[in-house]
Amino acid sequence: MSLESIIWRGDRLSLLDQTRLPGEAVYLDCRDFRQVASAIRSLSVRGAPAIGVAGAFGLALAAGEAEAKGLPVEAYVREAAAVLRATRPTAVNLAWALDRALKKLGESPDSSAAAGILAREARAIMDEDRRANQAIGRHGQELLQDGDAVLTHCNAGALATTGHGTALGVIRAAVAAGKRVSVYADETRPLLQGARLTALELMAEGIPVTLICDNMAAALMARGKVSAVLVGADRIAKNGDAANKIGTYGAAVLASAHGIPFYVAAPMSTYDPHTASGAGIPIEERDPDEVRRVGGTLVAPPDVPVWNPAFDVTPVRLIDAVITEYGVARGDIPARLREWHGSRPPCG
Amino acid sequence: MSLESIIWRGDRLSLLDQTRLPGEAVYLDCRDFRQVASAIRSLSVRGAPAIGVAGAFGLALAAGEAEAKGLPVEAYVREAAAVLRATRPTAVNLAWALDRALKKLGESPDSSAAAGILAREARAIMDEDRRANQAIGRHGQELLQDGDAVLTHCNAGALATTGHGTALGVIRAAVAAGKRVSVYADETRPLLQGARLTALELMAEGIPVTLICDNMAAALMARGKVSAVLVGADRIAKNGDAANKIGTYGAAVLASAHGIPFYVAAPMSTYDPHTASGAGIPIEERDPDEVRRVGGTLVAPPDVPVWNPAFDVTPVRLIDAVITEYGVARGDIPARLREWHGSRPPCG
Repeated sequence: MSLESIIWRGDRLSLLDQTRLPGEAVYLDCRDFRQVASAIRSLSVRGAPAIGVAGAFGLALAAGEAEAKGLPVEAYVREAAAVLRATRPTAVNLAWALDRALKKLGESPDSSAAAGILAREARAIMDEDRRANQAIGRHGQELLQDGDAVLTHCNAGALATTGHGTALGVIRAAVAAGKRVSVYADETRPLLQGARLTALELMAEGIPVTLICDNMAAALMARGKVSAVLVGADRIAKNGDAANKIGTYGAAVLASAHGIPFYVAAPMSTYDPHTASGAGIPIEERDPDEVRRVGGTLVAPPDVPVWNPAFDVTPVRLIDAVITEYGVARGDIPARLREWHGSRPPCG
Repeated sequence: MSLESIIWRGDRLSLLDQTRLPGEAVYLDCRDFRQVASAIRSLSVRGAPAIGVAGAFGLALAAGEAEAKGLPVEAYVREAAAVLRATRPTAVNLAWALDRALKKLGESPDSSAAAGILAREARAIMDEDRRANQAIGRHGQELLQDGDAVLTHCNAGALATTGHGTALGVIRAAVAAGKRVSVYADETRPLLQGARLTALELMAEGIPVTLICDNMAAALMARGKVSAVLVGADRIAKNGDAANKIGTYGAAVLASAHGIPFYVAAPMSTYDPHTASGAGIPIEERDPDEVRRVGGTLVAPPDVPVWNPAFDVTPVRLIDAVITEYGVARGDIPARLREWHGSRPPCG
């Protein structure tokens, strides 16, 4: 995949406008943190790891703004962090990255160097995300066999991260290891990240992909066509419950009913030990027009009431494994996650 | 609902072009059977009961064409029946209505009266469908309680029939009986019959409806918001397995996993005693562009491979009741259907 979701250019953050894919590849140049916040809100940049990195760079831009305007830097950056944090409530990676950058800033005695410090920390988060994705791929590909057909939901690919991808990273790694793996991509209504992004990523690399509507997954499973379901996550609670794109929970229930393993791939930045279970994960609800309209076309009565949650929660009992950069958690998933959370990051 | 799906005008068949709803209500005037076949193929008229009635009127038009051109009427009508039958393979009501009309024609000694005979038979099928829908509503509404929230998939409403509807007919009857019933409508990708048609029908009558994407149903069930799932059918096999719009099977699996009753409402013209089980029901696969595009907008890479089955099969073990014009079949569903199939139609 030659398209990078996030490019830091020193004075600005270039974000691939994913709302315009697959039609055209256009970068938004963000020169202040509000443009970054707006790009996160509109889903121009999306995917839990990617919005964490974008948020951290947003703080670097905020520090630069404060320095240029002669405003108190730390206060301005903290205000910016609050704005960025409020853009999307479900993915914990955003809050995690902002907190990490703020902590770094607080540790520095020299507030005049804030922009540089924050940019370096954002870059570090980005580099770690890339390495984590590679490691997730290495660990996770062991779960896939030659000939497997994997169902995925939404886009947990290079576009959702800063490269390689989580769920799609596992598939990429399996293919790189010489396994013939094909993919069924749920289109993922309402915003069609599967149709627009996952199909694009996989086709660009010659990995066989078949697009289906979300409601076709059950019939596909009943025909014995699905070897495994593999998705990303936006937040994993302390007990292992995982929030991910709306429709993931349904796919997990269907997988369980058909005896198909269900895997979640995510970096440990997605793990939230402060949220006890899925019941505590805030679920973002978005504009009803995302459902009433597709690509500008009205497909329903304009005033029909809509329920439009962006995420749902899959309980840990339906998850066969969580794949992280530390390894594959099976069996007592929360215990493994807790242990990894308290340990040093793996090398590589 | 003031919109009628099918209006017979003596010399032509006016079909509401449902592909243009909810935007505009336009009738297609079909003056020959090929126009009827084309309208069925393009889903301008859709819904198992409605396409049966439209097909029968198509034969009346064919007889008129043959008479006008001085061609052998019966041969011409049989050819027309073959063309109409091939338009859509899954719903058995179409084949059933064509066979019934052909039988009537065969019984008549006077082939010069064919057009009139066929039009009268089509009208009889239409009137019986309307009565069957009313009876389905009467029987089925007993299954719903005051305060229930019913999830439905696709459109099994007045538009799918010749009035009142099957699944929506049950809801209408419950509301008419004074029960407060609200509806969650699956949008029903790819062609969005839930968003476009079910939402429209229910809003027109002031029945509370909330539109969701298909992949949101599971999260809704997990929150305890769904009292029952109620759908139509395109063919019910001898063993009680039911084919219906793609996504129905998934909704049935989810309902079962959440302890929610799953009901199928259909007239006995949907029952096919010649198909032993769901495995024998032919499943129509449609144009990949139905998935790649929404309302003309391309939402996926233009050459991405697609699987686009129009229907799936729900095994009878997941069906709590089949509601027909004869009554509600529960328990040994296939035995009740067999018994009703061999008996005289109920009055009313």
